[in-house]
Amino acid sequence: MSDRRLGRHILAEFYNCNVEVLKDTEAIENYMVEAATKANATVVKSVFHTFNPYGVSGVVVIQESHLAIHTWPEYGYAAVDLFTCGEDINPWIAFDYLKDKLEAEKAETMELDRGDVNKIQTYSHNKYDKIVYKQQIV
Amino acid sequence: MSDRRLGRHILAEFYNCNVEVLKDTEAIENYMVEAATKANATVVKSVFHTFNPYGVSGVVVIQESHLAIHTWPEYGYAAVDLFTCGEDINPWIAFDYLKDKLEAEKAETMELDRGDVNKIQTYSHNKYDKIVYKQQIV
Repeated sequence: MSDRRLGRHILAEFYNCNVEVLKDTEAIENYMVEAATKANATVVKSVFHTFNPYGVSGVVVIQESHLAIHTWPEYGYAAVDLFTCGEDINPWIAFDYLKDKLEAEKAETMELDRGDVNKIQTYSHNKYDKIVYKQQIV
Repeated sequence: MSDRRLGRHILAEFYNCNVEVLKDTEAIENYMVEAATKANATVVKSVFHTFNPYGVSGVVVIQESHLAIHTWPEYGYAAVDLFTCGEDINPWIAFDYLKDKLEAEKAETMELDRGDVNKIQTYSHNKYDKIVYKQQIV
């Protein structure tokens, strides 16, 4: 259990993907839900939307935060966010799976901490004894 | 119209918020949808979930990407993502509105480009004539 932050957030840029996959809302939703499952997350709800003429936006709300995707088939590009909490989840498994399924030739990523424990303490005037991510029961 | 990137993404950390607001799923959903509207975004769908014993996760899918929130009432903390596309949307209006409604005493933010146009061109071997964000009709 990390005591440094509540969550971690991977921002991924997928370039030169398979354009047909990026247009396929059903496939994208399946891949995103499967990515969450493979990363050991618990899926709460998912919502996906197809744009006209093409492009998919969707989010999988997981018990441990969310995964989001926006695709631009016209440019072979997808923006993906993998925000997870707790040390039982590995968002990089979701990343690897999606990179493979989108057939991204190139990917760039950034990983950021969310909910820095020291800052939560400092900015709340040290009112909390101990700050940890607790697995929440739905 | 920016020709540098398709979207912009504000990651916001809200500290020492009003704990009762952070527990109130209905209020949080209303604030998030209103934040999107005030920023000039078009709301497509929203999905919110209440955790036991408390905490809210939710996403507003907008035509121009998404807004997401995760709250930890037990620590007065909320993680917010404001990902918007196009120059007609100002995500900072959504940020200011939410900071006010959550009564965050302190906020930290980072703004990142998503879909860097030069990288999309480079990594797709310059196959596109011109890359711009086009307002998509649902």
